[in-house]
Amino acid sequence: MNEVLVVALGGNALQRGNGPADADSQLAVVHQTAEQLVKIISSGQKMAIVHGNGPQVGRIVLQNEAASGITPAMPFDVCGAMSQGMIGYHIQQALGEKMKLAGLKDSPVTLVTQVRVDGEDPAFQNPTKPIGPFYTKEEAERLKAEKGYAVKEDSGRGWRRIVASPIPVEIVELDQVKAMLSAGFVPITAGGGGIPVVQSGEGHKGVAAVIDKDLAAWRLAEGLEAKTLLILTEVENACLNFGKENQQVLTKVLAREMREYHKEGHFASGSMGPKVDAALRFVEGGPGRRAVITRLDLALEGLEGLRGTEICS
Amino acid sequence: MNEVLVVALGGNALQRGNGPADADSQLAVVHQTAEQLVKIISSGQKMAIVHGNGPQVGRIVLQNEAASGITPAMPFDVCGAMSQGMIGYHIQQALGEKMKLAGLKDSPVTLVTQVRVDGEDPAFQNPTKPIGPFYTKEEAERLKAEKGYAVKEDSGRGWRRIVASPIPVEIVELDQVKAMLSAGFVPITAGGGGIPVVQSGEGHKGVAAVIDKDLAAWRLAEGLEAKTLLILTEVENACLNFGKENQQVLTKVLAREMREYHKEGHFASGSMGPKVDAALRFVEGGPGRRAVITRLDLALEGLEGLRGTEICS
Repeated sequence: MNEVLVVALGGNALQRGNGPADADSQLAVVHQTAEQLVKIISSGQKMAIVHGNGPQVGRIVLQNEAASGITPAMPFDVCGAMSQGMIGYHIQQALGEKMKLAGLKDSPVTLVTQVRVDGEDPAFQNPTKPIGPFYTKEEAERLKAEKGYAVKEDSGRGWRRIVASPIPVEIVELDQVKAMLSAGFVPITAGGGGIPVVQSGEGHKGVAAVIDKDLAAWRLAEGLEAKTLLILTEVENACLNFGKENQQVLTKVLAREMREYHKEGHFASGSMGPKVDAALRFVEGGPGRRAVITRLDLALEGLEGLRGTEICS
Repeated sequence: MNEVLVVALGGNALQRGNGPADADSQLAVVHQTAEQLVKIISSGQKMAIVHGNGPQVGRIVLQNEAASGITPAMPFDVCGAMSQGMIGYHIQQALGEKMKLAGLKDSPVTLVTQVRVDGEDPAFQNPTKPIGPFYTKEEAERLKAEKGYAVKEDSGRGWRRIVASPIPVEIVELDQVKAMLSAGFVPITAGGGGIPVVQSGEGHKGVAAVIDKDLAAWRLAEGLEAKTLLILTEVENACLNFGKENQQVLTKVLAREMREYHKEGHFASGSMGPKVDAALRFVEGGPGRRAVITRLDLALEGLEGLRGTEICS
């Protein structure tokens, strides 16, 4: 197989900031994203695509809650599966068109993907990710008592359900992704970090959890024996002292240096932190690997080492 | 490649009659369905699975409408994509477990699947399929004016949006399904009849339409050069004079005989009719083909010619 590249798409690949959340607006953004991806595919790379789903699955949860008086709300794992269908459809439609326009024979396809986490992951003892609507304190306490939800007050705006963010252990449908790549297709997989499942007997069982999509991309890249993990986001570079007077842009960095910077707290936990974490896990996991973090519209230049932050061993 | 079988799963494979619509109840039904499918896979057949989505996508539309004041309702094609994610996830989780328990190496995967219809299909001039919630006459007239919806009064219960049910022309991701089958996996595809799209330049564009899942299964079986189309439903056989005193069970029937019975109006348009239609299109479309219509729990016996209605040329 040709060298494999895993691309992780951030929220700005699917929706413009706090821009409109209707289908047409999102599809228009996805078409722009697809143009960037086609540049890379045209350069001869075999590519698997992972994407986030934060705002989208949040809206699905809202819809489920809003209608819970007339039809049962689906649990969070099922909402995740729905978001994979929704987002994957738009990406494969847009990317398919752009690939055809570029004269490429291959085409994309979305695989509904489960990602196994460890039921004993300590994250389950310390849930951190808010999901779904805001509740009053009374509603939150009732949900805690009735459904066993973990709830937390969110910056004075109300109460929300919080779920764990465990480490991805295994892409359940990894072999299917490999087969798609081998046959020349572009798989869209582990959307939203994957549908979180735990082992249950000989099978799997969905759990309420949020898997970081960059970490899912790391696990996928490991499994596919990829050489490059490309993490696309809203900023061109990872920086030291980000946003301060002494901010320093990182271009090419050794993994062990980056690991030090990470320990020193240069990368914010809600934004650049998990990207650097995923990049380091990938690069440190095997020889000859590199991770690139850059802005979506600089994807190809980033891969070519011209822009962005490249982390290698 | 081994001989390929396409299985079309009816509504009772996913939900028990008007039984509970919560996730656990549906997953339990899907586990029972998976047990039937595993019997067939264990017999050495290569299988692609198509499923319906009527009640499920209906609930997704309801949820979207109920929350439309807080987040934009997704159009019908996107709701279909969501239903593919949701239902496909449950089938692949349940079937994966049953296959492992049966000692099979293969595993299933859901492909998000677009199905192309002809924008000039006469069905678009005569929409027939009700979707989503009931409206008052005033609401219906407003939706007709504002959104261009076709609406219709539904048996005195209120007004509903109606959409077209065009003939499927092409499984857009057919090559991906073939690649999955060749590599030994069990693809779940064209769920709900597929996400309905029309050609748009070099790409595709979603449309509001319902593609009959049995016809999508026919089109898939054509594309995969399958030898057998197995349509699983709630009754064991297609019958002449169904429900009347002179009811006659059909076991083995030649396609040309079945075509006559169909013309004579023996098969109801809302239930057995589309199954017979799909079966006939398949069997008449090439030599050496057969279609079997039978009850879900008789799937393997049906394939073996012991139960159900078999249509051959």
